[in-house]
Amino acid sequence: MPDATLLESFPTPSSSPFVIEHISEEFTSVCPKTGHPDFGHVTLRYQPTPGGVCVELKSLKMYYQSFRNEGIYYEAVTNTIRDQLVAAVRPAWLQIITDWKGRGGIRSTIRADFGPVPGHYLGR
Amino acid sequence: MPDATLLESFPTPSSSPFVIEHISEEFTSVCPKTGHPDFGHVTLRYQPTPGGVCVELKSLKMYYQSFRNEGIYYEAVTNTIRDQLVAAVRPAWLQIITDWKGRGGIRSTIRADFGPVPGHYLGR
Amino acid sequence: MPDATLLESFPTPSSSPFVIEHISEEFTSVCPKTGHPDFGHVTLRYQPTPGGVCVELKSLKMYYQSFRNEGIYYEAVTNTIRDQLVAAVRPAWLQIITDWKGRGGIRSTIRADFGPVPGHYLGR
Amino acid sequence: MPDATLLESFPTPSSSPFVIEHISEEFTSVCPKTGHPDFGHVTLRYQPTPGGVCVELKSLKMYYQSFRNEGIYYEAVTNTIRDQLVAAVRPAWLQIITDWKGRGGIRSTIRADFGPVPGHYLGR
Amino acid sequence: MPDATLLESFPTPSSSPFVIEHISEEFTSVCPKTGHPDFGHVTLRYQPTPGGVCVELKSLKMYYQSFRNEGIYYEAVTNTIRDQLVAAVRPAWLQIITDWKGRGGIRSTIRADFGPVPGHYLGR
Amino acid sequence: MPDATLLESFPTPSSSPFVIEHISEEFTSVCPKTGHPDFGHVTLRYQPTPGGVCVELKSLKMYYQSFRNEGIYYEAVTNTIRDQLVAAVRPAWLQIITDWKGRGGIRSTIRADFGPVPGHYLGR
Amino acid sequence: MPDATLLESFPTPSSSPFVIEHISEEFTSVCPKTGHPDFGHVTLRYQPTPGGVCVELKSLKMYYQSFRNEGIYYEAVTNTIRDQLVAAVRPAWLQIITDWKGRGGIRSTIRADFGPVPGHYLGR
Amino acid sequence: MPDATLLESFPTPSSSPFVIEHISEEFTSVCPKTGHPDFGHVTLRYQPTPGGVCVELKSLKMYYQSFRNEGIYYEAVTNTIRDQLVAAVRPAWLQIITDWKGRGGIRSTIRADFGPVPGHYLGR
Amino acid sequence: MPDATLLESFPTPSSSPFVIEHISEEFTSVCPKTGHPDFGHVTLRYQPTPGGVCVELKSLKMYYQSFRNEGIYYEAVTNTIRDQLVAAVRPAWLQIITDWKGRGGIRSTIRADFGPVPGHYLGR
Amino acid sequence: MPDATLLESFPTPSSSPFVIEHISEEFTSVCPKTGHPDFGHVTLRYQPTPGGVCVELKSLKMYYQSFRNEGIYYEAVTNTIRDQLVAAVRPAWLQIITDWKGRGGIRSTIRADFGPVPGHYLGR
Repeated sequence: MPDATLLESFPTPSSSPFVIEHISEEFTSVCPKTGHPDFGHVTLRYQPTPGGVCVELKSLKMYYQSFRNEGIYYEAVTNTIRDQLVAAVRPAWLQIITDWKGRGGIRSTIRADFGPVPGHYLGR
Repeated sequence: MPDATLLESFPTPSSSPFVIEHISEEFTSVCPKTGHPDFGHVTLRYQPTPGGVCVELKSLKMYYQSFRNEGIYYEAVTNTIRDQLVAAVRPAWLQIITDWKGRGGIRSTIRADFGPVPGHYLGR
Repeated sequence: MPDATLLESFPTPSSSPFVIEHISEEFTSVCPKTGHPDFGHVTLRYQPTPGGVCVELKSLKMYYQSFRNEGIYYEAVTNTIRDQLVAAVRPAWLQIITDWKGRGGIRSTIRADFGPVPGHYLGR
Repeated sequence: MPDATLLESFPTPSSSPFVIEHISEEFTSVCPKTGHPDFGHVTLRYQPTPGGVCVELKSLKMYYQSFRNEGIYYEAVTNTIRDQLVAAVRPAWLQIITDWKGRGGIRSTIRADFGPVPGHYLGR
Repeated sequence: MPDATLLESFPTPSSSPFVIEHISEEFTSVCPKTGHPDFGHVTLRYQPTPGGVCVELKSLKMYYQSFRNEGIYYEAVTNTIRDQLVAAVRPAWLQIITDWKGRGGIRSTIRADFGPVPGHYLGR
Repeated sequence: MPDATLLESFPTPSSSPFVIEHISEEFTSVCPKTGHPDFGHVTLRYQPTPGGVCVELKSLKMYYQSFRNEGIYYEAVTNTIRDQLVAAVRPAWLQIITDWKGRGGIRSTIRADFGPVPGHYLGR
Repeated sequence: MPDATLLESFPTPSSSPFVIEHISEEFTSVCPKTGHPDFGHVTLRYQPTPGGVCVELKSLKMYYQSFRNEGIYYEAVTNTIRDQLVAAVRPAWLQIITDWKGRGGIRSTIRADFGPVPGHYLGR
Repeated sequence: MPDATLLESFPTPSSSPFVIEHISEEFTSVCPKTGHPDFGHVTLRYQPTPGGVCVELKSLKMYYQSFRNEGIYYEAVTNTIRDQLVAAVRPAWLQIITDWKGRGGIRSTIRADFGPVPGHYLGR
Repeated sequence: MPDATLLESFPTPSSSPFVIEHISEEFTSVCPKTGHPDFGHVTLRYQPTPGGVCVELKSLKMYYQSFRNEGIYYEAVTNTIRDQLVAAVRPAWLQIITDWKGRGGIRSTIRADFGPVPGHYLGR
Repeated sequence: MPDATLLESFPTPSSSPFVIEHISEEFTSVCPKTGHPDFGHVTLRYQPTPGGVCVELKSLKMYYQSFRNEGIYYEAVTNTIRDQLVAAVRPAWLQIITDWKGRGGIRSTIRADFGPVPGHYLGR
């Protein structure tokens, strides 16, 4: 099940603001209603707080893998990841976007933001 | 015929605002003038009202299927879906975009909005 | 239901052999098991018999539309269309290829041939 | 020659504002200088005036066909269609965008607007 | 109407065999049944007879333009072009492939050959 | 773990030979060496034996899902699926092709055949 | 060498503002350092001054061809074209964007503007 | 190791503001943690200070090559290039965007800005 | 003008047969009829004779550049390159394929072979 | 430098013949003439000898990395990899295809085979 303790971080390498984006194309969880697996892409985009931390990439991968056999809806996946990553890296701002492959002919995208996301990232 | 009673909902999983997008690539209705079938994609994008509800995905699919043998124009499909979904989920805002395959060499897109749709979603 | 009497034909305009291909991107029928609609593309490829006939394009469209509310499997759609078109145009050879959108994450293609299809068309 | 009397309309189906886009991929006229045919795509985008009318799709097609043998420059095609459609449907706002295939290695796009086109449609 | 006298040729520049392919993306004729324009691509592929001639490119363009207002079916366009080009350039072999945009949701391709077309060009 | 008893079949609907292809884009298993999940596409292509059976699509999906938490190499996945499907449907011939997403910058494809696969399907 | 006297113009056909875009995909000049040819695309976008002129398309082509054997850097090509076209058509505003194919694994784009270019065209 | 002394410049050819973009598709460095090579694209976008300098393209290539065997994280690569290029060309503003191929199924993009980057370039 | 003396070669590095393909996307010559430049891609494919030579890549580039201001037809370009490269490298077999951008809406490809080109390369 | 001792293998999991393909998109070596890095894709395709071995994927990656700072031509890279892999896995047959990014506007592909490669893989 989702295990935020897997997340590790390292100090941001710059005191100037910059933006980090990680796109995982290998996310899978389980539909709690049908028991069938769901497959999606997860985009994480955030600005580290100056003097703060960045999420370590391999630990992010392990964290995403902890959803593998979890029965959880799209909307909850998205909000859970946002909340747990915000707690782990305390960013200036952060976005989570999940894109889900078609189920019954319908593709879905869920977007959840934290903090003052710059306008040019909204809805993307 | 379009049957909004098919729409079901579930409570939104987060008190933070987030945005949901469902793209159905398997929509079909019938042209009331010629009797030939129309084929299109329907994009639903909305922000649940905090404390409100989300539309249940399978019920959305069934609702769309209820247009299958309905004689109805592109413009009316779009406005009908917008109005019935607004009534069903009472969102903070909502968009419906329908994209129709070529008919006589002309492809069409109809866009209808409800409420304060953020600027970065307009015209997309 | 599938209605082969809708098919019309016209005399082939050339005594030299040539090949005709019609790709319909707007085919829909109904899954007999679940009652959900299926959506696919249907490719017809054939060589008219010299002195024989070609299928009239609008009648082909009407014929395909007659499957719209028919409960029928992919494999039966493909074999039915092959058999009824062979009966209608008596071609030198004929192929039917149906491509079906994903259902439960699985896309499908069914290929059925009649007569001495040239090798360069096989499996395509 | 361009014949605006071909344009027909029907009452808009909604009192809420919405936007209609028709893309014709089969437009052709003739270059008045060389006599060679020009081929292009014509995008019409507009918002019907509440209580006003929408352009009927088949009549739009016939109207576009009336340019087929007309000797007329790209720029004049674009401005003529804008002016004649504005006169025919009295929209809240309207855009015409023409995209022309390469001539001498140069592709061209002409954009003409009418009324308060929302910013998110400009230049698209 | 189709005017094969427009076709000009020039002597082939090599005594070694080679293959020439010209793809016109701007072909239009008229459907004899509905009076609506048809739009397609025409591919010409041939091997000049050693010591023979090649078709001159601009004259080929003018020849294709002579179909612009001709009422003629897809199948007849394809066979007519094949026959008239074979007469004009007396090639070792020749192919004509016409690809037509969707009409009523159905795209079409017609292929007509002359002479011993090498196997690797068949059905392509 | 891989469970071939999940596979169900139904009688082939035609005595004429035809070919069935199912492409699953949602396959996942686990690398036995690293414990990390592998993600791939699985293509099944076969010709039912006349009078024999076809694999039922939903049961195929369930069968593929039984690999979800199995530690197994690419090559073994491919050969296992081939062998178990051959046993289940006794086809005239059958192919399994697995395509695996990049691991350490290397994408992989494994192809395994059974019986007299027609030449035009080999290596595809 | 670049010859602005080749540029011709014609009166703008409309008193309403509109925007013209010409994309040349066949631009070549010579690197003054290495003597090797450079290949690029040149986009011209501008709004004619009401009552003013448009650049004639064939003369634009000839003007671009006058750079063919000129030794000139990317940045100078872009600024030269901007300045010479502004002088020739006195537009309300104008943009030149040059896109250059890779040299040593690096692709380049240079953008130069004149006058009050609307925000929706900037950086595109 | 990263060697900013490799960077050369030349005077900007225009007193009008313009924007330069160089995209290197052949960047490689080494992961300091695993010792495996990383591969990415590096986009540099900047506006030369009027009267200032532009970076010379071949020297930029050599500078990027100086990272080839350097053990350095994505985030540090991006910030280092930004800082060293700002020092070398003293631009009005500058952006560095690095896009990294998938590692463990996760693709990454890092964006770092300097100075008043125009809004239409942000997040792109 | 075409200058085959620019071509250099080096000994083939293997006594086993292997195949080399070089695709130049930056070829330009001049139409002898109109004086306008032609732009195309040139594909060279050949098998070095065991114990023979390979064409040196930079010299190939210089050779292609020698056509830059030559007035010459597509067909002659193709045959000239074939003959001059055959003379320079004495290959086991060799192919030249030239692809030319549209002129008057017609794209062209010319293919010329030398020696026993394996069947799987013909027509490609 | 190329180090074939890095290659490891494991026993083939099936006594039936099957085909393995690994595509590395992150290969780099150094041009021995200019000292600039080369970047390419390397495709390995082979059939394990029944009872023989398969190449272990991570060891293949390490082997490819051993070319990173080697000065070596395209043709020699391709033949070296073929020879060393044939020695390491003793396959029934094997192919190496290297695709190199553009250098001076020319992209290259080198193909080297070992043993009785089936016809449907040749030239691909």
